[in-house]
Amino acid sequence: MKIHLINPNSTVGMTDAIARTARAHAGPGIEIMAVTARGTPPSIEGYADEARAVPAMLDAIIAAEAQGAVAHVIACFDDPGLDAARAVAMGPVIGLCEAALIAAGRIAKRFSVVTTLPRAVPIIEDLGDRYGCGRALCAVHAADIPVLDLEFAPVQTLPLIARKIRQSVEEDRAEAVVLGCAGMSAHLEQLGRDAGVPVIDGVGFAIRMAAGLAATGLLTSKAGAYALPRVKQAAEAQPRVAPLTR
Amino acid sequence: MKIHLINPNSTVGMTDAIARTARAHAGPGIEIMAVTARGTPPSIEGYADEARAVPAMLDAIIAAEAQGAVAHVIACFDDPGLDAARAVAMGPVIGLCEAALIAAGRIAKRFSVVTTLPRAVPIIEDLGDRYGCGRALCAVHAADIPVLDLEFAPVQTLPLIARKIRQSVEEDRAEAVVLGCAGMSAHLEQLGRDAGVPVIDGVGFAIRMAAGLAATGLLTSKAGAYALPRVKQAAEAQPRVAPLTR
Amino acid sequence: MKIHLINPNSTVGMTDAIARTARAHAGPGIEIMAVTARGTPPSIEGYADEARAVPAMLDAIIAAEAQGAVAHVIACFDDPGLDAARAVAMGPVIGLCEAALIAAGRIAKRFSVVTTLPRAVPIIEDLGDRYGCGRALCAVHAADIPVLDLEFAPVQTLPLIARKIRQSVEEDRAEAVVLGCAGMSAHLEQLGRDAGVPVIDGVGFAIRMAAGLAATGLLTSKAGAYALPRVKQAAEAQPRVAPLTR
Amino acid sequence: MKIHLINPNSTVGMTDAIARTARAHAGPGIEIMAVTARGTPPSIEGYADEARAVPAMLDAIIAAEAQGAVAHVIACFDDPGLDAARAVAMGPVIGLCEAALIAAGRIAKRFSVVTTLPRAVPIIEDLGDRYGCGRALCAVHAADIPVLDLEFAPVQTLPLIARKIRQSVEEDRAEAVVLGCAGMSAHLEQLGRDAGVPVIDGVGFAIRMAAGLAATGLLTSKAGAYALPRVKQAAEAQPRVAPLTR
Amino acid sequence: MKIHLINPNSTVGMTDAIARTARAHAGPGIEIMAVTARGTPPSIEGYADEARAVPAMLDAIIAAEAQGAVAHVIACFDDPGLDAARAVAMGPVIGLCEAALIAAGRIAKRFSVVTTLPRAVPIIEDLGDRYGCGRALCAVHAADIPVLDLEFAPVQTLPLIARKIRQSVEEDRAEAVVLGCAGMSAHLEQLGRDAGVPVIDGVGFAIRMAAGLAATGLLTSKAGAYALPRVKQAAEAQPRVAPLTR
Amino acid sequence: MKIHLINPNSTVGMTDAIARTARAHAGPGIEIMAVTARGTPPSIEGYADEARAVPAMLDAIIAAEAQGAVAHVIACFDDPGLDAARAVAMGPVIGLCEAALIAAGRIAKRFSVVTTLPRAVPIIEDLGDRYGCGRALCAVHAADIPVLDLEFAPVQTLPLIARKIRQSVEEDRAEAVVLGCAGMSAHLEQLGRDAGVPVIDGVGFAIRMAAGLAATGLLTSKAGAYALPRVKQAAEAQPRVAPLTR
Repeated sequence: MKIHLINPNSTVGMTDAIARTARAHAGPGIEIMAVTARGTPPSIEGYADEARAVPAMLDAIIAAEAQGAVAHVIACFDDPGLDAARAVAMGPVIGLCEAALIAAGRIAKRFSVVTTLPRAVPIIEDLGDRYGCGRALCAVHAADIPVLDLEFAPVQTLPLIARKIRQSVEEDRAEAVVLGCAGMSAHLEQLGRDAGVPVIDGVGFAIRMAAGLAATGLLTSKAGAYALPRVKQAAEAQPRVAPLTR
Repeated sequence: MKIHLINPNSTVGMTDAIARTARAHAGPGIEIMAVTARGTPPSIEGYADEARAVPAMLDAIIAAEAQGAVAHVIACFDDPGLDAARAVAMGPVIGLCEAALIAAGRIAKRFSVVTTLPRAVPIIEDLGDRYGCGRALCAVHAADIPVLDLEFAPVQTLPLIARKIRQSVEEDRAEAVVLGCAGMSAHLEQLGRDAGVPVIDGVGFAIRMAAGLAATGLLTSKAGAYALPRVKQAAEAQPRVAPLTR
Repeated sequence: MKIHLINPNSTVGMTDAIARTARAHAGPGIEIMAVTARGTPPSIEGYADEARAVPAMLDAIIAAEAQGAVAHVIACFDDPGLDAARAVAMGPVIGLCEAALIAAGRIAKRFSVVTTLPRAVPIIEDLGDRYGCGRALCAVHAADIPVLDLEFAPVQTLPLIARKIRQSVEEDRAEAVVLGCAGMSAHLEQLGRDAGVPVIDGVGFAIRMAAGLAATGLLTSKAGAYALPRVKQAAEAQPRVAPLTR
Repeated sequence: MKIHLINPNSTVGMTDAIARTARAHAGPGIEIMAVTARGTPPSIEGYADEARAVPAMLDAIIAAEAQGAVAHVIACFDDPGLDAARAVAMGPVIGLCEAALIAAGRIAKRFSVVTTLPRAVPIIEDLGDRYGCGRALCAVHAADIPVLDLEFAPVQTLPLIARKIRQSVEEDRAEAVVLGCAGMSAHLEQLGRDAGVPVIDGVGFAIRMAAGLAATGLLTSKAGAYALPRVKQAAEAQPRVAPLTR
Repeated sequence: MKIHLINPNSTVGMTDAIARTARAHAGPGIEIMAVTARGTPPSIEGYADEARAVPAMLDAIIAAEAQGAVAHVIACFDDPGLDAARAVAMGPVIGLCEAALIAAGRIAKRFSVVTTLPRAVPIIEDLGDRYGCGRALCAVHAADIPVLDLEFAPVQTLPLIARKIRQSVEEDRAEAVVLGCAGMSAHLEQLGRDAGVPVIDGVGFAIRMAAGLAATGLLTSKAGAYALPRVKQAAEAQPRVAPLTR
Repeated sequence: MKIHLINPNSTVGMTDAIARTARAHAGPGIEIMAVTARGTPPSIEGYADEARAVPAMLDAIIAAEAQGAVAHVIACFDDPGLDAARAVAMGPVIGLCEAALIAAGRIAKRFSVVTTLPRAVPIIEDLGDRYGCGRALCAVHAADIPVLDLEFAPVQTLPLIARKIRQSVEEDRAEAVVLGCAGMSAHLEQLGRDAGVPVIDGVGFAIRMAAGLAATGLLTSKAGAYALPRVKQAAEAQPRVAPLTR
């Protein structure tokens, strides 16, 4: 069973690192088809980066199904374009944040998220609402580091993340802590070692959820919100190329 | 990997039927340890039946871990005693309703549930709130049949359920329909055939979730709400055996 | 008019203390029928203790109605088994937390709860949601003391509780503070003396609510969720006594 | 113990009818001090009537405490000025809708309200939110009759109300029905007779709640939102008597 | 186009100051008709002051429409009587808090409010709920100063407000700060100068919203909740002048 | 003052029609800079169309500010990419649905939306949640017509929309009805004529809100979620052009 793991940013090294985690947790019979989106920002930091990454991600999903993928995992903690992905995919699509928060809610009554930049905080808080976390999501903390520094400067950044994990346990009374960026995935073992509570990276469980849905016969419903896009003819030629100000 | 499937009611035939579904969907490397709770009501129909089933279910969970189970699935759509189960278990615990509603929310924007008796409706509505479904859960419909009639009178009851599935699609605009009773599990193929939207039985995905959490190293947090019960000495002898009225 | 006061834990001394408070506040014409549940944990500390106490509590409710009780108060701040109690009772049933939070919301715009163990915090937060407190419930604080120490070591424990009451007023801006354990009931006068805001023990008002509902002719509706449990025949003999692993 | 029952509208006949219900359910030791507000609309039908009734109601509350009242019931189902009343009162204040919805939520999992005019529907829906009813409040139905017709034309109006009660039970699956106007109080017996579920008039239970709070020593907190109004000097003379348009 | 700006308190100097801000931001073609309510409290500090101000405010709205006003702004941050105002007005009515919170939610993802007295905090929190701010409203802070001190003692009070603005930015991570009292309007420039984030006074935008609704043809709907008050005959003479105690 | 009106779909005729409405309602001193996005779908029907339209819309916003635009209106009722737009814009950005729902909530207590395709319904319901409509948004109805048919086949489509407007008033008790597609803007007069309640097209009020924010000095906060995108170097060359499957 082929599971498509799409990294919506254009940094191949990050795709490779996430794919290693995915393969380590996928279980027997699962092939991970890891893809880097093309022409997108090098990292996804905020709403505008998300928006610029999604069209290429949709193309990758369509291409992956043509190559036999039966389910998809979006390997970015902002879950960019999750609804649009479900509209173009026939198989199930799982977001990384979605999987991580669902896992957290099954093993802990209260949990916190530790992420990279402050601008990701309200995005993740809104995702917490979307996935119904309610008061279970105690807090989202930003370690205040750029995403790619996780890749290039782990010696400097990991202690900052570890400090936020400790703060979550001590001040929020969090019973588990979620790593809020796909780039933290490679460092789970180190970050989880002394936390005293479960530390959750969503990559492995996202693969398991996607594969589990497909294996039990559950495909994306095409009956309503996630119907395939309608094919449309352009209404007219578009000769105007400059903004139309009158 | 041993997954403990606990049927909180005392009807062995129902355990057997659910176990067949579980084994069909478990995937490679998973052993299903199916257990019928002892001394509990023959079916779980409402709050009082739930309450009377839970202590035996907790004992079964403790016993199953002693025998090597690494995760648990509660095979009743009311998810009775889910929090108490997490407090006594070291491994992750998944409820049937929990798994089914989580699956539904991944493949459809809006979905309905079809259950047995009217008294289950508010219970499932509250579970929808607990799992954060919000407006995604369009409605919970009762086909108005006792739980055990699913087992003993399928010829009479399945058409009633099929009618409620159609009503969900046509009136609620549901994009998927969830079967709201473990006893419907054996009839998924027949009920899903003509529905036009995905029809979801949670048993298979519940096993996948429980196994997926355990396989990715996620155990129930013992740091707060789900800490193991404290061991206590009775404060004093209890000589009074009749209700104490003064 | 007989009001049944059921202590779901098995500590008779605690029943006696709560009954004294109940009788002091019951008003004319009310007889308190105080009962200790049998075979339950000595104190209710968390989800598992709750689950193991409820079946005996349901038996006590049925027995009390046979002896003339017209309404019931569950004398534990976790309100264990409240829905199940309503399903077996003909008369109204009031939980201790329910009464206390309803009282608090009538005399203050914002209030906090002070309880015993940290594991009770999320339980009470969820009850706050159930009773619709919303932002009115500022916070739930745990003094970090076992329940029975309230009974056996008041000299050590009361200052810890008083400190949390002060913290509620100063840091939460709470306009009232609720004592979040039936065992605190006996110490209301001492704890309330210097608080500067109303300090609320729910026992007295719970009795008043239960009696008030009964006196104005309001019985538990048997039309839906709280219908009496259905009588069922076991579906088959249950020869298997060991967990069924295949 | 004197309980002040304030009818915020100026129709004395309505005060008298409500006072009869209150006295019938008050229990031993309770004296009902029934007051009609002065100079207010003859009935409270919508937001503007409410606003014009509240100042006189506040004056009545202050006067009643000067005459020994220890608690207050606002005898109008819109609960007009409830927060303002708490700000001027030392004793507890209970609204009629508040008492009725709290009673309903104790004896039924789901309930509906039947009121008079359509414009009262959103007011009562908002009160349902305020008192935390959530999905328990199935629906608010208007029988489409002016408030005073309950007093002057019961033969015509009661069948319209009875029809809405039946609709609540049959279509909403309501397990109890609340009478959503103080003017229906006198007709409770007739309206409840054939409903098949509990029909709730809040007057009796409101008196019980108000008295119960006072009897257990619970007064309105003066520490925050309900602090007594500050005494202020007018900042300057106000010579302008006509609207100031420049 | 005449826009009616009604100050519900009776302090003319405050009306004048607010009117200056309104005229500065109204834009071409807008005439501000500034009115001070008559016989109301000198400032609105809490629920009781609000209630006592509303009837005169309703009279002013009716009078203003008779003089040609096409829309109304309630110039008090508590938005007292907003629903009642809509019931008596034909044109649109905008509250000051309403306009300010709507503006804040358009230019910032998270924002805080700084107000005067602590008793205003829960009022503004409830307004935040009413206007759907959710988690976007980080916090409401009180500088603990009487409303009229803004007018008479700006040298003493402005530093206290500035401190709360800084606290909002630093501790709440607020991306904008709303001035939570009409009396702060005159000091916007000074308070906003060094804040580092947008500081919002709602007066100007409230005028723009009211005028914008009217200019695009949007009047208050008279079809339901905001229908004009019904005209009623008093049911009977009201000879009783003293409270009626029996 | 230049206001940028961006139509995210690529149909110029639709831009022209919307621009006519905008200019009719803009008021004195406002210049409408109407722009059609380039290379986007001919209409926005569902999540995937939205995602494919947003990057070009962001480019248009940046270009418009370079040409002097001080505020932006997104002329599509799905409000696609609203947060991303705020992240790239210095001036305020208003969505069409946002403006329409805010307008509706100021002049009616309850309102419904009538839109084109069923797949838009959950999108608009979610926007209703985002803008805090709560129960005020009674229902979203789809007339089941493709977006461009509004442009090309008004004779056939307008009666279908008019029927849904009537249904909103009669069955939902809606006090106002919102036109849920920018393409309906040109037909407001005809659709509103016989509705009996206010019918709201958001285009005019959106322009008024955008201009009102800018005129009162309110720019998008750059302090948090809407900070300008960070400039990043691609981490490495991306030689792989085919999906990377191992």
